[in-house]
Amino acid sequence: MTDPVLEHALAQQPALIKTLKALAACPSVGADPAMAQGMEDARQIIETHLDAMTFENRQRLSPANGGGQPAIYAERMDAPGKPTILVYAHYDVQPSDPLDKWQTPPFEATERDGKLFARGISDDKGPMMIALDTLAAFVAVEGRLPVNVKLLIEGEEETGSPSLPGILETHAELLKADAVLSADGARWRPDLVALNVGSRGNAGFEIRVETAAQDLHSGRFGGIVANPLHVLSTLIAGLHDDRGRITASGFYDGVAEPTNAERTEIASIPYDEEAAFQAIAAAPVGEEGYTTLERLWMRPTLDVNGMWGGYTGAGSKTVIPNEAFAKLTMRLVPGQDPDHAKQCVMNHLKAQLPPGTRLEIHGDRGQGGAYAVPPDHPLLSAAVAALEHTTGQVPLKVRIGASLPLTEIVSRVLGLDTVMFSFALSDENFHAPNEFFRLSSITEGLAAWVQILREIAQLSPQDFDAYRRQ
Amino acid sequence: MTDPVLEHALAQQPALIKTLKALAACPSVGADPAMAQGMEDARQIIETHLDAMTFENRQRLSPANGGGQPAIYAERMDAPGKPTILVYAHYDVQPSDPLDKWQTPPFEATERDGKLFARGISDDKGPMMIALDTLAAFVAVEGRLPVNVKLLIEGEEETGSPSLPGILETHAELLKADAVLSADGARWRPDLVALNVGSRGNAGFEIRVETAAQDLHSGRFGGIVANPLHVLSTLIAGLHDDRGRITASGFYDGVAEPTNAERTEIASIPYDEEAAFQAIAAAPVGEEGYTTLERLWMRPTLDVNGMWGGYTGAGSKTVIPNEAFAKLTMRLVPGQDPDHAKQCVMNHLKAQLPPGTRLEIHGDRGQGGAYAVPPDHPLLSAAVAALEHTTGQVPLKVRIGASLPLTEIVSRVLGLDTVMFSFALSDENFHAPNEFFRLSSITEGLAAWVQILREIAQLSPQDFDAYRRQ
Repeated sequence: MTDPVLEHALAQQPALIKTLKALAACPSVGADPAMAQGMEDARQIIETHLDAMTFENRQRLSPANGGGQPAIYAERMDAPGKPTILVYAHYDVQPSDPLDKWQTPPFEATERDGKLFARGISDDKGPMMIALDTLAAFVAVEGRLPVNVKLLIEGEEETGSPSLPGILETHAELLKADAVLSADGARWRPDLVALNVGSRGNAGFEIRVETAAQDLHSGRFGGIVANPLHVLSTLIAGLHDDRGRITASGFYDGVAEPTNAERTEIASIPYDEEAAFQAIAAAPVGEEGYTTLERLWMRPTLDVNGMWGGYTGAGSKTVIPNEAFAKLTMRLVPGQDPDHAKQCVMNHLKAQLPPGTRLEIHGDRGQGGAYAVPPDHPLLSAAVAALEHTTGQVPLKVRIGASLPLTEIVSRVLGLDTVMFSFALSDENFHAPNEFFRLSSITEGLAAWVQILREIAQLSPQDFDAYRRQ
Repeated sequence: MTDPVLEHALAQQPALIKTLKALAACPSVGADPAMAQGMEDARQIIETHLDAMTFENRQRLSPANGGGQPAIYAERMDAPGKPTILVYAHYDVQPSDPLDKWQTPPFEATERDGKLFARGISDDKGPMMIALDTLAAFVAVEGRLPVNVKLLIEGEEETGSPSLPGILETHAELLKADAVLSADGARWRPDLVALNVGSRGNAGFEIRVETAAQDLHSGRFGGIVANPLHVLSTLIAGLHDDRGRITASGFYDGVAEPTNAERTEIASIPYDEEAAFQAIAAAPVGEEGYTTLERLWMRPTLDVNGMWGGYTGAGSKTVIPNEAFAKLTMRLVPGQDPDHAKQCVMNHLKAQLPPGTRLEIHGDRGQGGAYAVPPDHPLLSAAVAALEHTTGQVPLKVRIGASLPLTEIVSRVLGLDTVMFSFALSDENFHAPNEFFRLSSITEGLAAWVQILREIAQLSPQDFDAYRRQ
């Protein structure tokens, strides 16, 4: 009962690894202008590969106002009456420093212990090649794809996707689809078959508390003026109540309580809390009434990421400083508007400020909303079925506490939902030295991608009507 | 009715200024080992001067175990049956940097607008010369002093007097006296005739809060671990209650409430609170139930002088740090034991620490108790009478919110009380560029010093019996 397309794809693995190594050899570090040639080399390898796969309408996409690293587009629309899937991946990688921590050169894919080591191999060149070569195998064996596929391979994922909203807006017609299937986004844990169905958003700002025009001597002013470090501490201590809830009025607007079904699903996930916290020598602490995974996936947070003021050098100085600073960020959940949530916290801080002190707020940090795939979304169901088919296990639905800008941008600009279907694993040192990708993930990934395309082929575009928000 | 001794002293002012300029030319910066010669030059000028004044038993005093900058000692014990006064001054000065802020060279006394500009001219070389030349005038005119005088001229005042306790202990017999009269310690304000009758003590420590073994990413840990910046903020916010009182149990042990007489005396002091706070763009804030001057002079304080943790660079970083730091100092009032007060705050912090977090305390900062002259002390009465005689005004009794280690050390080691009788003014930029000393203060100071010695000569050693704690 082997699938001939999968058989072909598996047989072609040496070719896949060869292309992947060539791609990994391109230092496509988007953040570093000196590596522009590495970006261009990566684009050309991908474009050559897409041409060989007989993809059509290949082009580079930029926003209307130009600039940025172009995304690569290509399509095969040879499945009339079938859904159209926008497959996402990215060709840019994180910087490789600190270079001296790498055991082998970052831009020379090296095989050790069933793993390929190179910068970007797990994030996202390896997972991208799985998606591409699955598509190639369909064309090779069946002469066409089972569904319509539009490919969007971004070049700015690692630098915050600044051009992506503009690219999506400018080319909205070209990119019309029923849903987005992403070859990016790591799987949670090697020991679990899981699908990521949600991520938190974020927002933040910096504050400065001022209590006087200049630093004061504690002998001359101690006890008679406000100390900005005390004022700031009181403001920050007042951001949460005794039960760990954020006190800013309106902050929780739109936040849905986890349903019983969601709580049951989360509770069923094997999670060794004790071991996880022991590993970082920390205690599980958070909002009362929620488990650790509920707190991490379903509840918004507000954290001070940095705080400073006064004398911080060696020894002691009897100064009462005149200013103190803090950087704050929040993690947001579906239903929260980043601007509104941020404004609620700002208003709260202003309202708590003692008389005679001043508060400055610098709120120009980037931000984005949370995202969750609708639980009954047909592409999610296809992904569940594909993983069940290839692993024999019903995948767990997990979320991440961090942000996935892609999902939120795609939802906002194209009105489409995204399913993350990467075969990277979260322990593969992406964004760190000695990034690697398991060779076994290629086999698993090809099987799953063949199967998910077959599952989608069982659907019609009308199945997505209730979910498209275009 | 002019006092012939004063007449003589005033006539000798040009000589005083000449010696003062020579002394100011010595860069006697005790903190800087490269300026050892400046220290030695200053000592020799003073010693030559003392010899010319026919002082006796001149010697350099060091602690039994040696080391440090020696103090200069000399005496004239030619008033049998009269009190013996230990006159204190210091010959070391603060460093002169930042040099580029000086309008004229710091070690070259320059006259401008009735002021002499030089490092150390106000603190304490000018005031010291007033005391010395008063004594010289008595010897010149009357052939002897009206009271017995022991001189102690310290060389480590600006570096925290580390050797002074040892010098006093080692030479306790030599330094036996009825009270200490200090030529150091600035007058509070140019517009007020005042005597400083008390100073606050101080103590402090540094704390480190740890919540995890390493920095954590807010996407992976936001909402499920303690944030040390929040923990630290809560600890610091909890140090004071809503009424501005320090919450640490036992901290106020021994603190006496201001008496009605003290409150009345303080309330009678002309003090333009609005102008004082407007000048620093701050609001008067502090412990409920006390006026600003009561808070500053009669109430202990607890201040964070520095605080830091997490990301403090440009932009934003979604880190949950694993540690946070704060430096704390307290100002103490008479009746408080620095060790006990400090321990109470440490205990309070430990008791407030949330479970699962760690607190380290580094408590090795120097400290000292508060000091107050007994209100009916005979030397204080003599000082009041002298100022009333020379100014026509009853001096106000003021305190300072800062610390005067000398008074506390002398009280602790020699069991003697100290009256501060300097003619420096608090606006004379000591410890800052362009330090100056008013020439008019020399005239005023000579008159007051002549008179206070005459006042003390009306007393007998027995008048001090109730106050000596030897």
